[in-house]
Amino acid sequence: MTYCVGMSVDEGLVFLSDTRTNAGVDHISTARKMSVFELPGERVLVLLGAGNLSLTQAVLRELSEPTTPQQATLWNVPTMAEAAQVVGRAVRDVHQREAQALQDFGVDFNCSFILGGQIAPAAHEAAADGGAPLPRPRLFMIYAAGNFIEASSVSPYFQIGESKYGKPIIDRVLVPQTPLGEAAKCALVSMDSTLRSNLSVGLPLDLLVYETNALRVTRFVTVTSDNTYYQMIHRTWGERLRQVFSEIPDPDWQDSASAPRGDMEAEMVLYRAPSGAHGAVDARPAQTLAQADKPKARR
Amino acid sequence: MTYCVGMSVDEGLVFLSDTRTNAGVDHISTARKMSVFELPGERVLVLLGAGNLSLTQAVLRELSEPTTPQQATLWNVPTMAEAAQVVGRAVRDVHQREAQALQDFGVDFNCSFILGGQIAPAAHEAAADGGAPLPRPRLFMIYAAGNFIEASSVSPYFQIGESKYGKPIIDRVLVPQTPLGEAAKCALVSMDSTLRSNLSVGLPLDLLVYETNALRVTRFVTVTSDNTYYQMIHRTWGERLRQVFSEIPDPDWQDSASAPRGDMEAEMVLYRAPSGAHGAVDARPAQTLAQADKPKARR
Repeated sequence: MTYCVGMSVDEGLVFLSDTRTNAGVDHISTARKMSVFELPGERVLVLLGAGNLSLTQAVLRELSEPTTPQQATLWNVPTMAEAAQVVGRAVRDVHQREAQALQDFGVDFNCSFILGGQIAPAAHEAAADGGAPLPRPRLFMIYAAGNFIEASSVSPYFQIGESKYGKPIIDRVLVPQTPLGEAAKCALVSMDSTLRSNLSVGLPLDLLVYETNALRVTRFVTVTSDNTYYQMIHRTWGERLRQVFSEIPDPDWQDSASAPRGDMEAEMVLYRAPSGAHGAVDARPAQTLAQADKPKARR
Repeated sequence: MTYCVGMSVDEGLVFLSDTRTNAGVDHISTARKMSVFELPGERVLVLLGAGNLSLTQAVLRELSEPTTPQQATLWNVPTMAEAAQVVGRAVRDVHQREAQALQDFGVDFNCSFILGGQIAPAAHEAAADGGAPLPRPRLFMIYAAGNFIEASSVSPYFQIGESKYGKPIIDRVLVPQTPLGEAAKCALVSMDSTLRSNLSVGLPLDLLVYETNALRVTRFVTVTSDNTYYQMIHRTWGERLRQVFSEIPDPDWQDSASAPRGDMEAEMVLYRAPSGAHGAVDARPAQTLAQADKPKARR
């Protein structure tokens, strides 16, 4: 599998991808899942791909092959939405060519992409605009059917691949106002949780942080197991999580006359032994969970 | 969907299940997924079910229907492993009856169970043993094919249903030495992360904590949104997580002469604009991630 995440905050975009690819546990290899299309000063587009590697690579070939001057490409489209359309069209072309043959072998047409970036208007338009601000960076998710959706302020990120392990922390901390460095940190913590719980996601990681209006790549790093910042996140996050966890009081069960065994039984889906089964019924009161969040002595 | 978790620690067993069931987002309802088979003083068995509700209910009917005295049931098997076999056999019976008809409608035979508990040896065996210690509580996971596996000290828990969101926290904190109350807290935190990120899992929750050698249910609660302990976990965990997160330093990007743009490009999967595309290449040095975990002023 794969885990890739793209985030869109006010200060810019964050892209993070792992590099593990596998066809069963016997065939584990490394593949880069982040591709950068850059024309410095004019456009930066970053594409993350997940799914069947032969398909994501086929889509990338479509996108990078020479074309006629009339054709829309990532190099000439004037807006990010049109760039997402170009990727969607490439996915559909690959689908048309590959899907039936794969299906004959029982293989699903399985690929998805995150596309983000920023495109400056062409020089003559910029002049006509008289120095209007640049269009903001945008972030899209493109499905296997070639259709796509855009991130928004209420949903400022997309994940593809093994997304569930790393989702809770993003849901808790990411908003559009999150500073860019903090968003990058959030992506790395999310990746760390995924790496911890799922073997099919692995180091090294590709991290690209795009600063709004830079129109060039200024921050990129391949994070290996030697990277001290990632080591620090990995170590500190786990430790602090365990510490916070231990500071939360345990549930306080109480032997309570107000909650006799009978009440508890009314709540439970309790199966009783058929007549003939042995065992003496016991009237000892049960314990219910105390309705207070006070700490307690450990039992 | 569903999220259920069963944990086995030295002090006992923890069972937690949500109660949401859905067939598409239009058909959301509440169903209990925890069933308790109790013969106080002799045996307690707890069964958690996930998957197609019609199938898990069919399995429960198999398990609770009257039988001939010769037949092995949850009420008469002498060991937990045999109890897991009884559940596996019930799953296979339901499969034989239902799977083909479901498949004709394109519905998978999809159900799985967690079974845990403790069974005291029969009175005459206990007497012969001369007061040997009770067999320890055990925890099993039973698959749709009726086969099953047992939890161990290196893997002391099972999850069924929407398991991924809540897995990282369990992986980080649970070991067999974890006290019982702390294990229950861990299950609730894991559930809270799942509820936060997945709509198909919902309150109320059924929580049962089994104390080793109790041979009866002593701690059970249905956790609703009014439960102050759960409210405290929900609030505190989110807050403290955000706090720990904000205390970890952001990545420290540096404009570094030692890592010029060229090095970064060598690392990136960078597509260059075809000849004819405009845009001036810029030689400004790029930033790489500092190899130190020191805090930094926010950019």
